[in-house]
Amino acid sequence: MNYCNQCGGSLEIRVPEGDTQPRHVCRQCGCVHYLNPKLVVGCIVETPAGDGRILLCRRAIEPRLGLWTLPAGFMENGETTAQAAVRETLEEACARIEIGPLFSLINVPHINQVHLFYRGWLQGDHAPGTESLETALVDEADIPWGELAFRSVTLCLQAYFTDRRHGRFGFHEDSLLPPASY
Amino acid sequence: MNYCNQCGGSLEIRVPEGDTQPRHVCRQCGCVHYLNPKLVVGCIVETPAGDGRILLCRRAIEPRLGLWTLPAGFMENGETTAQAAVRETLEEACARIEIGPLFSLINVPHINQVHLFYRGWLQGDHAPGTESLETALVDEADIPWGELAFRSVTLCLQAYFTDRRHGRFGFHEDSLLPPASY
Repeated sequence: MNYCNQCGGSLEIRVPEGDTQPRHVCRQCGCVHYLNPKLVVGCIVETPAGDGRILLCRRAIEPRLGLWTLPAGFMENGETTAQAAVRETLEEACARIEIGPLFSLINVPHINQVHLFYRGWLQGDHAPGTESLETALVDEADIPWGELAFRSVTLCLQAYFTDRRHGRFGFHEDSLLPPASY
Repeated sequence: MNYCNQCGGSLEIRVPEGDTQPRHVCRQCGCVHYLNPKLVVGCIVETPAGDGRILLCRRAIEPRLGLWTLPAGFMENGETTAQAAVRETLEEACARIEIGPLFSLINVPHINQVHLFYRGWLQGDHAPGTESLETALVDEADIPWGELAFRSVTLCLQAYFTDRRHGRFGFHEDSLLPPASY
């Protein structure tokens, strides 16, 4: 960040009056530019028949092109977390879902992200969106654990299958620390 | 947002190639500037003695100067959601806490915020920080429902006291819609 997005002035990094942290402050207009974590929201999509399969997407874009993930992406302004999960599932897997409860919150502080995963139920078909190479409904035994794109997805799915074996779904909170890659 | 914070060029609003939403795009370097929701994280701080009182802060700053709230504020880069709750409680109520489980997630999409509230236990004393006029440990019967600063705080406390009466704390998800003021 080099320039003020309000006036175009140059930025310096200093602790503003009354603050405790160094911030990007405009030398020209004094505007303070805060940097805050972003929310990534996704969904564990189950088949409505309850046959135990869940929906995975193989990534068509970097990072982690070619690896498997749950449908997920950056939350947008103006939507709720549940709406973000529904939208991302539609965009990445062309799949309409009935959204369920929030299942997992995973902090990824070294990349300034918080990941949320809902549970949801597939309503109809699925197909790769522009950011996916393929989509698949996968049994627990066929989860490609060694080819998952993100550690948060691995953590989320481990908790999900553990809960499922116990016949009771809770809410899970976790944090990833470096040298985690994601 | 008027200028590119990378190169100082002027911005236009258009749908970038491969995107579906209008974004702020730099006319000079092509950089796309995304706007994403911010996380506000706070805590319902209980006395460790379990006498049922919780910690409230009376705001010394706008918005809602003079009204009561739970200690809460914007999550910072580089921290986890739990660390944000601990830090905000220290900053606003000079109170060290043992952090507990996440209790509530409240979407406030019309102001592009997601509010998270943890439960926590007071470890020692409390006093107003620079953003608070006063702090107080308050019984349920003395909660100033008509003088709470934010609707998300009201929703969170209603769920908290309901759960407490039932002797069982769950995880709560909710959304505020306009014309909610916060």
